[in-house]
Amino acid sequence: MTNANGNAGASSSSAYKKVLAPDTINPNVINVEYAVRGELSNRANTYADILAGSDEDKKKELRFESVVTANIGNPQQQPFLAQKPITFWRQIAALTEYPALLEDDHLPKEARSKLFPEDAQARARQLLDDLGSVGAYSHSKGVASIRKHVAEFIEERDGYPSDPELVYLTSGASGGVALLMQVLVAGPSTGIMIPIPQYPLYSATLSLYNANQVEYILDEKNDWALDVDGMTKAVDEARAKDIDVRAVVIINPGNPTGNCLSEENIRDVIRMAHEKRLVVLADEVYQVNIYQPKTRPFHSFKKVLRDFSKSSDAKERSIADDVELVSFHSISKGVSGECGRRGGYFELCNISPEVETEIYKLASVSLCSSVQGQIGIDLLVRPPREGEPSYALYKEETEGIYETLKDRSEKMQAKFNELPGVVCNEAQGALYLFPQLRLPQGAVDAAEKKGKKIDEYYCLEMLDATGICVVPGSGFGKKPERDGEDTLCFFRTTTLAKETDAFLDRFGTFHKDFLQKHKKA
Amino acid sequence: MTNANGNAGASSSSAYKKVLAPDTINPNVINVEYAVRGELSNRANTYADILAGSDEDKKKELRFESVVTANIGNPQQQPFLAQKPITFWRQIAALTEYPALLEDDHLPKEARSKLFPEDAQARARQLLDDLGSVGAYSHSKGVASIRKHVAEFIEERDGYPSDPELVYLTSGASGGVALLMQVLVAGPSTGIMIPIPQYPLYSATLSLYNANQVEYILDEKNDWALDVDGMTKAVDEARAKDIDVRAVVIINPGNPTGNCLSEENIRDVIRMAHEKRLVVLADEVYQVNIYQPKTRPFHSFKKVLRDFSKSSDAKERSIADDVELVSFHSISKGVSGECGRRGGYFELCNISPEVETEIYKLASVSLCSSVQGQIGIDLLVRPPREGEPSYALYKEETEGIYETLKDRSEKMQAKFNELPGVVCNEAQGALYLFPQLRLPQGAVDAAEKKGKKIDEYYCLEMLDATGICVVPGSGFGKKPERDGEDTLCFFRTTTLAKETDAFLDRFGTFHKDFLQKHKKA
Repeated sequence: MTNANGNAGASSSSAYKKVLAPDTINPNVINVEYAVRGELSNRANTYADILAGSDEDKKKELRFESVVTANIGNPQQQPFLAQKPITFWRQIAALTEYPALLEDDHLPKEARSKLFPEDAQARARQLLDDLGSVGAYSHSKGVASIRKHVAEFIEERDGYPSDPELVYLTSGASGGVALLMQVLVAGPSTGIMIPIPQYPLYSATLSLYNANQVEYILDEKNDWALDVDGMTKAVDEARAKDIDVRAVVIINPGNPTGNCLSEENIRDVIRMAHEKRLVVLADEVYQVNIYQPKTRPFHSFKKVLRDFSKSSDAKERSIADDVELVSFHSISKGVSGECGRRGGYFELCNISPEVETEIYKLASVSLCSSVQGQIGIDLLVRPPREGEPSYALYKEETEGIYETLKDRSEKMQAKFNELPGVVCNEAQGALYLFPQLRLPQGAVDAAEKKGKKIDEYYCLEMLDATGICVVPGSGFGKKPERDGEDTLCFFRTTTLAKETDAFLDRFGTFHKDFLQKHKKA
Repeated sequence: MTNANGNAGASSSSAYKKVLAPDTINPNVINVEYAVRGELSNRANTYADILAGSDEDKKKELRFESVVTANIGNPQQQPFLAQKPITFWRQIAALTEYPALLEDDHLPKEARSKLFPEDAQARARQLLDDLGSVGAYSHSKGVASIRKHVAEFIEERDGYPSDPELVYLTSGASGGVALLMQVLVAGPSTGIMIPIPQYPLYSATLSLYNANQVEYILDEKNDWALDVDGMTKAVDEARAKDIDVRAVVIINPGNPTGNCLSEENIRDVIRMAHEKRLVVLADEVYQVNIYQPKTRPFHSFKKVLRDFSKSSDAKERSIADDVELVSFHSISKGVSGECGRRGGYFELCNISPEVETEIYKLASVSLCSSVQGQIGIDLLVRPPREGEPSYALYKEETEGIYETLKDRSEKMQAKFNELPGVVCNEAQGALYLFPQLRLPQGAVDAAEKKGKKIDEYYCLEMLDATGICVVPGSGFGKKPERDGEDTLCFFRTTTLAKETDAFLDRFGTFHKDFLQKHKKA
């Protein structure tokens, strides 16, 4: 008999050995770690299910009334983040999904104009002209007109030409990263540099493709800036071990660190990439999540790279066309927060045409990215302009989201720093804080007893006590370190929780209780 | 200076050697072949651009006024396929994109009811309750309630239990296939059996992951059925060469062949999979594209597998819970044809819980599939039922699409067989025909002069003469073969062209001209 869950279990014949087992499947899959959605996230899901269910006894066992998923940058997640989508985006999504709404005999013009501003209608019509139906596969690189708009956006942002044929629309930025890594990783000797701390998409992808992670350490004391000397040393050391280091991943603004790189810092990294022959993979998905725009504006790698062409030094000038760069962007972050549509793009810069052909071929195998995700990219790069009917509301909504995100980040950072044993850099950008914790030996001992790393233990205890789910620093490659009698470790929290005060209260109470519980006897 | 297309080209400094070149990138990427979107498809795109452009001289050089993309099963592609989307689907997509349409103060109840039937409104509200916002990442496996509905659909279809926790919502079926292949391929000795002819997603994915394609030949003389003895022999021969054959891909209904497997044939394959210890990967994306429902109904692998539990023979009974099966489905085909939403699912059956954990982890790395694709899956598995307001229109639309597809397939098959040197099996299912061509030596010689395979040459000539883009049989692994003085080869065409008569006229004229041009002197 088949058991209830349709799975094998005990009923499989004892003589039969399953083909797939942990020791027969791809060992690289086993090696993948992905902390943003691991044990903590699963336990948080279980708690959320209990709270949404009808078993009152089980509910009473929990010490909280809601789960706050601060483990993942998912702004529109309900009910505890619930960032509102931008009206203009959703109007165009609805019109392109159901074009009957644009037809007079279906929805008379006057009634339609009350529901959809003229510019939203015009944009939807134009998109439908360009792409036909959102139910059709597009070109494998994405709808041509949308790629053209992306190139125009990049040109306007950077002041340098951009070619739509070198723009690829992808399933979020992560779809693009996976594609590029498949091209870059030629075998087990390939090395790709990633920052520590880093977003675990990179380490997971490198594990999956069995490449070497060549780690470079971000400078915590210097607001998590890039330490170019340290990076150079990391390349040299890896190459001395016969690792074929060929690319460097840079996340700017930083995830989980929130650092926003200075122009000078970017310039130095590009020089280093040229000197050491490294492809630069620039993850720039938080480029509008900038909280100190005057002192720490966003500088795109593309612009800083092309600016080398203005140098009076011939060798420096050559950098502009030598260094291979892939830049990634997304609709999931920023002020749109449209994660569920799965829209992103990457732009190739200075990649040889032969390699570009191979990238195109590989993109073709997965046919195309979600067309509504592509439409999202069009909206990202072509927002309503001043004078257009949708402009006022768009401005109000996006500025509101921006200010809210900025306020929350600043408030949380300030409050974190008031707690004993917590030091938190301010976020210059992105959607996270990455506080450092100073924890006593008692906590380390308690964690060891449970077979957990100290930061994992802390985060699991936090979840059990408060319902708040965050990610331990070790999930980003930042290992706990001894410092005298204490241990220093980290966690990452998003700054997206709707009720920041309640979040901070719950967290603060937990943290003090935790220190009390584990202090020296 | 950077050149116009932002690429490197001549301006890169002569001293600098690019990091990425055909001989440094992943060699598996170089080895990938994907004929559905290759040279032919690119040339067709170029022609379409010319026809859409304003250069009248260039237009005049073309011998046709439209390009027909019969190379890819993309039913809603405009303007020459243009299958209409199902109204119920798009109403719900629009409402979930822009929930303001469900609010009385935005769209009064009466006006709303004119635009959206009550059941569409209710379904949209329910989906929004379940998933929150289409702009939020869902659970990595997909929205829980939608997976529950998939499991209910499978139970209703097969009469056996299905567990929502073993259902994964994916980016089309191809997203699921790529994920499973990553898990299955453990190293270069892994072998996966694929049919010949096959859908090139499989060969491309296996090339990319550097696994061995273990080919089994479909029986052309027997309507492309599975030849189980041949399959057994293929496993044995591969294993004798130390290839670790661990899975068999079966496409049913067949792509490109249109074969719909008999229950007996499926049963025999499952017995073989048990005997030889093979995981079965059942690609069932065309399960409602069945054109001879009485004589050739669709049988799911899951049902036939579970039916072994009813056997009086103990060994046969054990098969039901022994054989590991993954079944794939999609919203891109069927009568919905919603390719651009990127929705699909797979169900795991008899997979060990430890391996399931690894599959889940890997799914987490890419976060989730497009939420509108997931909603598409909900609509696929829960169509309007009799008595509900949307039922009549839904029935009319889907039956209309079904009949149109069936009629076109039958008409095209009949006409193909009237042409000299063309033999075409009838399609029992799916969206394609796969005619066999008997071509004279003159054509082979002409192809060789151009450095092309004979079937490639034929298809390129067809495109240049008619604007019709199809895929040569060699793109599906079906190689041209000598037969006396002639050569036998194939092409695949979709049966989706809106104007079937015009298509057949253009094709027929080309074919006769081609034979005339290349006949013996």
